[in-house]
Amino acid sequence: MRVELINTGTELLIGRVLNTHQYWLGAQMVAQGWPITHQCTVPDTGTDIERALRTALREGGLIITTGGLGPTSDDLTRQHLATLLQRPLREDPAVAQQITDHFVRRNRPMPPSVMVQALVPDGATVLPNAHGTAPGLALTIAAQPSENIAASWLVMLPGPPRELRPMFTTQVLPWLRDNLPPLPPLASRTLRMTGIGESRVEAAIVPALGELIRAGLEIGYCAHCAGVDVRLSARGAEAAIIVQRAEEHVRLQLSAHIYGTDEETLEEIIVRQLTQRGQTLAVAESCTGGLLAHRITNVPGASAMFVAGATTYSNAAKETALGVRSQTLMEHGAVSEAVAREMAAGVRARHHTDFALATTGIAGPGGGSAAKPVGTVFIALATAAGVQVRQEHNAFDRVTFKEVTSQQALEMLRVHLGSGALENSGGD
Amino acid sequence: MRVELINTGTELLIGRVLNTHQYWLGAQMVAQGWPITHQCTVPDTGTDIERALRTALREGGLIITTGGLGPTSDDLTRQHLATLLQRPLREDPAVAQQITDHFVRRNRPMPPSVMVQALVPDGATVLPNAHGTAPGLALTIAAQPSENIAASWLVMLPGPPRELRPMFTTQVLPWLRDNLPPLPPLASRTLRMTGIGESRVEAAIVPALGELIRAGLEIGYCAHCAGVDVRLSARGAEAAIIVQRAEEHVRLQLSAHIYGTDEETLEEIIVRQLTQRGQTLAVAESCTGGLLAHRITNVPGASAMFVAGATTYSNAAKETALGVRSQTLMEHGAVSEAVAREMAAGVRARHHTDFALATTGIAGPGGGSAAKPVGTVFIALATAAGVQVRQEHNAFDRVTFKEVTSQQALEMLRVHLGSGALENSGGD
Repeated sequence: MRVELINTGTELLIGRVLNTHQYWLGAQMVAQGWPITHQCTVPDTGTDIERALRTALREGGLIITTGGLGPTSDDLTRQHLATLLQRPLREDPAVAQQITDHFVRRNRPMPPSVMVQALVPDGATVLPNAHGTAPGLALTIAAQPSENIAASWLVMLPGPPRELRPMFTTQVLPWLRDNLPPLPPLASRTLRMTGIGESRVEAAIVPALGELIRAGLEIGYCAHCAGVDVRLSARGAEAAIIVQRAEEHVRLQLSAHIYGTDEETLEEIIVRQLTQRGQTLAVAESCTGGLLAHRITNVPGASAMFVAGATTYSNAAKETALGVRSQTLMEHGAVSEAVAREMAAGVRARHHTDFALATTGIAGPGGGSAAKPVGTVFIALATAAGVQVRQEHNAFDRVTFKEVTSQQALEMLRVHLGSGALENSGGD
Repeated sequence: MRVELINTGTELLIGRVLNTHQYWLGAQMVAQGWPITHQCTVPDTGTDIERALRTALREGGLIITTGGLGPTSDDLTRQHLATLLQRPLREDPAVAQQITDHFVRRNRPMPPSVMVQALVPDGATVLPNAHGTAPGLALTIAAQPSENIAASWLVMLPGPPRELRPMFTTQVLPWLRDNLPPLPPLASRTLRMTGIGESRVEAAIVPALGELIRAGLEIGYCAHCAGVDVRLSARGAEAAIIVQRAEEHVRLQLSAHIYGTDEETLEEIIVRQLTQRGQTLAVAESCTGGLLAHRITNVPGASAMFVAGATTYSNAAKETALGVRSQTLMEHGAVSEAVAREMAAGVRARHHTDFALATTGIAGPGGGSAAKPVGTVFIALATAAGVQVRQEHNAFDRVTFKEVTSQQALEMLRVHLGSGALENSGGD
């Protein structure tokens, strides 16, 4: 089936905003078995949006639009669609009420222009917006050869990712399953890996998978700065068994690098495991600058296992907040195995936790030397049994450096937890 | 002028690779005064590429393609173009030599298939590739009404960013300046705002801008979860003065909400201002969980002004790391004005900084109550003159809650710095 994504928004064309919709929806649609086959971005002008919709409707299939549903005057998608389909727009009372409530709840004045968002073309399904005022719309459109319209399914989504993503997951996917022709059963499994590159993953797994590939196995790779996701999928009556066998093969080759499956992040795994074990964590960060704490506290329920983080950028702060000795700092420098060790042990003792992680390194772009170039980093894990330190060389830009280093730190704890080591309570 | 970007590559459609070409080329072309007006992504199949090229040539203007110039069998752009334009392909001896040299230099065997990259359509300018084997191509195409081709300029670039970007900067830009019609001058200014919604921004500024809009002013809005960017632009001899007047109007209405201009982020402004003033900052975070420290430390050079952050999730950690009194926690609860006040004062005193920010709130999804629902947050700013606390209600998902709250905290400090208040040194 033809699946077209139409992104509206001049900001996507002028290099102001990265088109993460194309990336995110692309992965979602592949996972559901309806891969996007065409994509375009058009400016927020009525004529361009209308033209893109008309062209897509002529081809038919599934059409997904993003943006252009908001209250400002450049949001013209809704009007142009109604004209094109010759379906009148009606104010939906439930949506109108929801918009009014949104402003009342925030105690903000409601500009009259926002009510345009309550207008719904005849016959459209309204997709309520749990995180904003503009609802989404979904329509099944019958072929109208005289109007140059082929049989189509049209889904219109709001532009902000925090509104679009939950709407897509909770409302669009069920609507697609109910309204699109059924697909042969899909089985899929994503294995998430870290500490290994995409080409090494491919070289390690493909030779053993030839037979399953001939039987219909598809392998997709998605490389992030902090790891590689390998997606195994198949369709049809044998799909589940094909994917299961493929997973067994991949685990046989690469189990040391696999930290999780499907959507689960490394921080979610850490929060879940420590919560289940009734254990606690503290972190001491220099070069990751708070990112480690930020990632852990992004997980709902993290307060059950996360006690405290200390971001200590200066030497004085390392002494005050963590009890690192000034002699250690003088003798070894702030970026050293010895300081990483004292940071981890210090934050663990101060907050009486079972585990502690610490990072100290040179994120760049400045601050490197011949002995310790930009990218040098020491990562420490403190447990009741002592402190272990790992040295890495993460020669990336500053933001990627922080991302990769925080991933290595979390992975160090995950591997320790998975090793079956029994820990004494870290309490005093 | 119509400017279309055609990205080829199935990996861009299936959520495997983020379309950074659209973002990077988009910003480059705006800066040069030829903003991209249309963009599409097509799979690596011959029919789709040919169709996209034919459609673009029918419209005319500048057409830029990425990808599809490499040696693998799915790289069909070159062949389809030659057929479409009825221009024979000839092997370019200089390119053939460069490809041979590339393999000789690397001491690698040369597969015969790579020589397809030396084929050049008649009349095309070859853009040598300093970082790979596939050269780019540039062509001026005269209108051929009988073939449904409008006057066009076509630039074809290789897919890998490290090959495309230097080729664009050093070769494509000079070619465009030599071959495209000269442009009227462009002026543009983006004003970045926070604490106000898109529709309120529009309602506040548009009435006063009618005359400038009629004179050619264009206004674009881009809403983020933590603010709105308003881009003012115009073209022609009067462009600079139109944009300057528009900026004055907007500032008159909304100066309290404008934190920066063009690309600058709020954390960059804070780092720059405190560094210039020789002043320092510490942060104490509960509900933002390290994000405030993370954002500040993303800015190169932050170590000049950022001393320390404390992420204190438990009550005990608030006492240990910040000196919050247990009585205050018992009487008011962790999410309270009193605790926010003691957190900010405590981290400032402990690390001897000029300023300190603190956040305590309920990020959700759990933890809310009738008196303090999810989204309740207290943000404190400590200075030598005392502590001020602001209460907000940020009823969003957990990640957006953290983003918005960290923005409000940084904005509180920015407004204070901008108010001209003179601070004593925060040292002891």
